[in-house]
Amino acid sequence: MQTPQKIAVVGSGLVGTLLAIYLKKQGHTVHVYDRSPDIRTVEFSGRSINLVMSTRGWKAMEDVGLDDEIRKIGIPVDKRAIHLKDGKLNYQYYGKDGEAIFSLSRGVLNRRMIDLAEAEGVEFFFNHKIWDVTLSDATLHIGDSERGEWTELKYDKCFGADGAFSRIRHRMQRQSMFDYSQEFMKMGYKELHIPANVDGTHKIDKNSLHIWPRGNFMLMALPNLDGTFTCTLFMPFEGENSFELLKDEAILVDFFANYFPDTKEVIPDLVEDFFKNPTSYLVMMKCFPWTHTDKVALIGDSAHAIVPFYGHGMNAGFEDITVLSEMISKYGDDWETIFKEYETSRKPNADAIAELSFRNFMEMSSKTADEKFLLQKKIEKWFSDKHPDKWMPLYSRVTFSLQPYSEALAIGDLQNKIMEEVMQLPNIEEKWNSEEVENKIIALLK
Amino acid sequence: MQTPQKIAVVGSGLVGTLLAIYLKKQGHTVHVYDRSPDIRTVEFSGRSINLVMSTRGWKAMEDVGLDDEIRKIGIPVDKRAIHLKDGKLNYQYYGKDGEAIFSLSRGVLNRRMIDLAEAEGVEFFFNHKIWDVTLSDATLHIGDSERGEWTELKYDKCFGADGAFSRIRHRMQRQSMFDYSQEFMKMGYKELHIPANVDGTHKIDKNSLHIWPRGNFMLMALPNLDGTFTCTLFMPFEGENSFELLKDEAILVDFFANYFPDTKEVIPDLVEDFFKNPTSYLVMMKCFPWTHTDKVALIGDSAHAIVPFYGHGMNAGFEDITVLSEMISKYGDDWETIFKEYETSRKPNADAIAELSFRNFMEMSSKTADEKFLLQKKIEKWFSDKHPDKWMPLYSRVTFSLQPYSEALAIGDLQNKIMEEVMQLPNIEEKWNSEEVENKIIALLK
Repeated sequence: MQTPQKIAVVGSGLVGTLLAIYLKKQGHTVHVYDRSPDIRTVEFSGRSINLVMSTRGWKAMEDVGLDDEIRKIGIPVDKRAIHLKDGKLNYQYYGKDGEAIFSLSRGVLNRRMIDLAEAEGVEFFFNHKIWDVTLSDATLHIGDSERGEWTELKYDKCFGADGAFSRIRHRMQRQSMFDYSQEFMKMGYKELHIPANVDGTHKIDKNSLHIWPRGNFMLMALPNLDGTFTCTLFMPFEGENSFELLKDEAILVDFFANYFPDTKEVIPDLVEDFFKNPTSYLVMMKCFPWTHTDKVALIGDSAHAIVPFYGHGMNAGFEDITVLSEMISKYGDDWETIFKEYETSRKPNADAIAELSFRNFMEMSSKTADEKFLLQKKIEKWFSDKHPDKWMPLYSRVTFSLQPYSEALAIGDLQNKIMEEVMQLPNIEEKWNSEEVENKIIALLK
Repeated sequence: MQTPQKIAVVGSGLVGTLLAIYLKKQGHTVHVYDRSPDIRTVEFSGRSINLVMSTRGWKAMEDVGLDDEIRKIGIPVDKRAIHLKDGKLNYQYYGKDGEAIFSLSRGVLNRRMIDLAEAEGVEFFFNHKIWDVTLSDATLHIGDSERGEWTELKYDKCFGADGAFSRIRHRMQRQSMFDYSQEFMKMGYKELHIPANVDGTHKIDKNSLHIWPRGNFMLMALPNLDGTFTCTLFMPFEGENSFELLKDEAILVDFFANYFPDTKEVIPDLVEDFFKNPTSYLVMMKCFPWTHTDKVALIGDSAHAIVPFYGHGMNAGFEDITVLSEMISKYGDDWETIFKEYETSRKPNADAIAELSFRNFMEMSSKTADEKFLLQKKIEKWFSDKHPDKWMPLYSRVTFSLQPYSEALAIGDLQNKIMEEVMQLPNIEEKWNSEEVENKIIALLK
């Protein structure tokens, strides 16, 4: 057990709250600050993409004993339901033997976690704006406005779990030798919504992540416990098939009728939602180092904000906590080493999931509509079922394993090279599950 | 002529001062702010690398009629003098017919330019710290300290010429859709110095850029008008042959005796300079956009800080002014279009010189010590002399032409592919200037 410390966590989002629970269980005094009101007292805004919890997330949940509580508020999703433009519906299972990710509403999950954190004895301070931090002694600077009076709050350590636009990182960025990048996608997203049936059931299959892949844009839907779906439309801000073109009701309705004809019945409030909900940005953010001496550390999105296309933002943030926890077990009160090892071991994996997430837009929005790609995935699944020791598909490595992201990425690239060769075999469509193909893959794996 | 505007330039460095002169000549009211004291009143710090002015810089100077004034304070440098470890000295000429870059001391040049700007009627406000800008109306926020009282200064336009750590860009970075990256090199630099002979002459050839290439580190010297040389030692902060190892006098002297034996006579104050002068950082910075509506624009290092290995930081910044001036001639009072076209046309070229500069460290520190590389350059020069219409070497394109950097980079990459093939010809050392080689290059150029 560590010597108890007085620790501030800036940000009461998912990662900040779970970190607070973990630190409290370690015996520390933990105060969580958030610039926003208590999420339990306000309606959650229309700019959310549903979360999916997978193995890495569950691991961190189990470590603090929250997994059973959280499983109650999620819905297992074991496949992609791919809605083609001609009305055809394809299913693509994620794993084997019913392996599933869990769809969770961000608002519902965050509220529940704050309840659980308070029950553990974590103290929350909402509507408290942290504008700056003195890195050398973990002093927070708090006030109503950036240019107004600030007061100081002195802690032993401070964690910046304050997201992609972190103020804690903002201070670190002004240090020498701090590498930083922020890159905005040319694509944005908008939340839409499928209501429940009158009897509370789901209008479309509830155990699927629904995708309408349309090339450079796509619609996606993830189930909620109350029978609804949270939908997300991803598309470019400008150019062909873009948000800038959908400027009035007639154009919007026509666009949906053309590209997503089967949504007409299930998204009745399309026009209202579309023009009410904001068009949100997607940003990729990288930085290094993540820590300052033994005083300050970044965690979650503040250290590595990624695009949402692999469903791993929360899972990667939770895995930061798992790694931090390993370092704490290993190095006890030597926080400087804990922080150093945490950032060094975690950084390549954060970069890898950033890359995987970025690439996955192409997979979701284009490749899932491509017969050849679906066949490739089918061959990989077939081979993997026969030779589980020789082949785990990339998606399973990332989502249903705890293998470091960087290893998963490297092996995935090798597998992809092999599959490129396999897909070029003549008549692969007919002989995809033949002994010839099996032996070819085995040979290429050598 | 444009309608006169009240324009603020933040930063009195080389680019800010030249921009101010240009804008004043256009008929605008120009105020230049700088957080530091007037450089004409203080001793210039020991952290400078000498500048080299080349064709792009001269072009901007000529446009405002300053070229003759500035030529007086520089020294033409027409070649690299390459000091090998065994004492051998090689010369590599930069261009043809005496083409030369001009070595200038940053302090001397900056002081002279501020004098000339004041003579034009530009007003300078030194010791004025700009902490923030309101982008929508070009209001500057000024005060003694970041957390103290600020007052507002309202302008029609504002230019951020405030360098790699620009406060103006700092505000822009907090806008959505602003891409930004800062990357620190693992290598730093330290200024050293070769004094003049008693009679005021130079101790080593004054028309050379002297390099001591040693692989992952190098020493460089550029001449000053007063008979001295400004030397720069570039080396990694940590690891083999690094600043961290040179921690006392004995180790330092031994290191120089081993790696730079011929500097013993010419750098008498090595120990004093080394431990007195700071070890400085090298940072590469990229961002986009560079402008905000018709109100605010970044220029020079604040928009594109690069590493110094091509000697183009100042030249690229001055060329920004040339491009801005072209847009002003073209679009008159339509500042929004001026700014849009300026950033759009300039950004790919800023990225290209960043890449070229980054690569050039390898060329200077390793390749110039490689016989094969020197032969390649000799062949390129020989072929270029015979067929000036077919081949201009990359260095000449970048340094002695006004071709956009991005085109120079692309053509340079093509030429390099050709030379890779040529260098693999058997016995190339003997037949380098044969008809066979000539025809081979011509064939590859097709």
